Amino acid sequence: MNQRRFDTHVYARRLAAVAAATADAGLAGLVVTPGYDLRYLIGSRAQTFERLTALVVPAAGEPTVVLPRLELATLRESAATELGLVVRDWVDGEDPYRLVSAVLGGAPAATAVTESMPALHVLPLAEVLGVSPVLATGVLRGLRMFKDASEIDALTKAALAIDRVHARVPHFLAPGRTEADVAADIAEAIISEGHSEVSFVIVGSGPHGADPHHECSDRELRHRDVIVVDIGGCYEPGYHSDSTRTYSLGEPSPEVAQHYAHLQRAQRAAVAAVRPGVTAAQVDAAARGVLADAGLAEHFVHRTGHGIGLSVHEEPYLVAGNDLPLAAGMAFSVEPGIYFPGRWGARIEDIVVVTQDGAVTINNRPRELLVVPVD
Amino acid sequence: MNQRRFDTHVYARRLAAVAAATADAGLAGLVVTPGYDLRYLIGSRAQTFERLTALVVPAAGEPTVVLPRLELATLRESAATELGLVVRDWVDGEDPYRLVSAVLGGAPAATAVTESMPALHVLPLAEVLGVSPVLATGVLRGLRMFKDASEIDALTKAALAIDRVHARVPHFLAPGRTEADVAADIAEAIISEGHSEVSFVIVGSGPHGADPHHECSDRELRHRDVIVVDIGGCYEPGYHSDSTRTYSLGEPSPEVAQHYAHLQRAQRAAVAAVRPGVTAAQVDAAARGVLADAGLAEHFVHRTGHGIGLSVHEEPYLVAGNDLPLAAGMAFSVEPGIYFPGRWGARIEDIVVVTQDGAVTINNRPRELLVVPVD
Repeated sequence: MNQRRFDTHVYARRLAAVAAATADAGLAGLVVTPGYDLRYLIGSRAQTFERLTALVVPAAGEPTVVLPRLELATLRESAATELGLVVRDWVDGEDPYRLVSAVLGGAPAATAVTESMPALHVLPLAEVLGVSPVLATGVLRGLRMFKDASEIDALTKAALAIDRVHARVPHFLAPGRTEADVAADIAEAIISEGHSEVSFVIVGSGPHGADPHHECSDRELRHRDVIVVDIGGCYEPGYHSDSTRTYSLGEPSPEVAQHYAHLQRAQRAAVAAVRPGVTAAQVDAAARGVLADAGLAEHFVHRTGHGIGLSVHEEPYLVAGNDLPLAAGMAFSVEPGIYFPGRWGARIEDIVVVTQDGAVTINNRPRELLVVPVD
Repeated sequence: MNQRRFDTHVYARRLAAVAAATADAGLAGLVVTPGYDLRYLIGSRAQTFERLTALVVPAAGEPTVVLPRLELATLRESAATELGLVVRDWVDGEDPYRLVSAVLGGAPAATAVTESMPALHVLPLAEVLGVSPVLATGVLRGLRMFKDASEIDALTKAALAIDRVHARVPHFLAPGRTEADVAADIAEAIISEGHSEVSFVIVGSGPHGADPHHECSDRELRHRDVIVVDIGGCYEPGYHSDSTRTYSLGEPSPEVAQHYAHLQRAQRAAVAAVRPGVTAAQVDAAARGVLADAGLAEHFVHRTGHGIGLSVHEEPYLVAGNDLPLAAGMAFSVEPGIYFPGRWGARIEDIVVVTQDGAVTINNRPRELLVVPVD
């Protein structure tokens, strides 16, 4: 099995940084329930829902884990023990929100909560605190958006693994096979190429390719189908791959070839736009501009990309209106697509990492419309 | 493949009932993001997170689905179309919370939100509404706690399937095999006996059995190990099984046999206590009383049970302080356990359905400590 989490010093550094960011933001503290943020901060994969498990990071004071007594053993799988975190366990019948409030010192300042905290906990916590929490997005994204060397290493390994899967995809495509047949082969390849989990497999053939979120179906592939293959997995210690290539079963029609060429230029323009200081919205505009000039604006119906790391979709989002300046260490997808409802679609997606003076693309399979010969 | 959802009329009845319950509670409406409640109300398995997908049920007005445009195709897999729900799609850059507010008529009354709605949506929705939401638990549990005939049928099929798995467990247990080996065999059996998904597999041998939430490990089974096997899966259209039996590899020690006999009496007493009008806390007390009389009170460290249905853990919870009167149609686990840290543990768990005048146990494997002969 691959390494399940990083060394303890990685989490120690993150905890110190998040406590500082919480204090800088004038917050009483940060409360993090199970999910990616908890995994980021202490390497915990806890999945409790109805009983509150929470890491409480007060702006001043000791980070403390509040959790049900029967989860104590699970906690040992995280870095909590090596980090020497204070633990306050509770049993059914006790009020865990009062424990959280006590760790926060009952301060009147607002408390930040992780994005994924369910309403089940957000609302009673707000009541005990007497003040509405705020989203921890601002505090945490300043950390999670900037990948350190170990994270970029993990993302790169994931990207290489998904590139190896795409290299095998042409062998899975043939007239008469269903999207589901192809998806099953791809899922197996995602694991055999080194991922620990399959995150998603989209095989959108012909008209299904026109739906950006189609997964797969029993539709049989046919000669001249354009096929969108958007795939990803989780690579230990928990970082994701996500790459799309578009395949053509036999030679494409002139219309497909022509539109695809515009898409490829759009994707290249967006990647070329990435460098420190450029905003997320400007990268989106770079792709959109090329497609608009080609008369394809209305066929590009989604944002240009999303950050990636412990989760498949995270900050930064490359979307109109996001004036966030890009900076070294950010990692995100660049994935414009064009969609012709009822007919076909195409998308090209690479993960890009921002460097000090530009960007590197960590997916590197050919980006042309990949023609699979038909006998 | 098994049936993926119920007939449309089931959802139509639920939607009408939830709208009435929302109005009765004096609420402006109900907002349900992806999760079990959404699956319960319209058969949707949507899993969107950062882009808001929500079913909005105003106390007066048309139920409406607010969702990202690129999820429109996914919506067709639910019952939304046959139900004739209004759909308001949105694209990146728009504010979906204003759409929700508009459907609710901008009413000043409080709005209920599903328990699983993430803070990412709870907090901005609260800001647009201008009033803190309340948990929909009260509104929805009055529906979801009472299983109709089709749901009890689904739960019973799931229970029979997990009973068949437990019937096979003795063949998987032998000295020298690891907990992980056994868990892999069980996972395969969960699927081959008819479940669509494995929900959890706990194989807690020897000292690991003393941790109620241990999953499995590389520990090798030994002669005289007491082994807690707590397993469950999802059975289409999405209802869960959950049953625990405790096994002994070879003859148990007299101490184990004696304590186990008390546990078995405790579980039987709790099941016998179940009937309409008795409170959830009284069932918990029935189990706890037997164990206390035997001097084992401190070794029973968790609640007696949890409701089960679309989710593995849901209302009603059999726990001290829960004065909810039981009523026909409720389905929950009855699962007292005893735990001796560092040494061994035992638990017996059945799913019980409340009837008009008592209860039926839908798991029916023998409840004795199951001795597996060792050569």
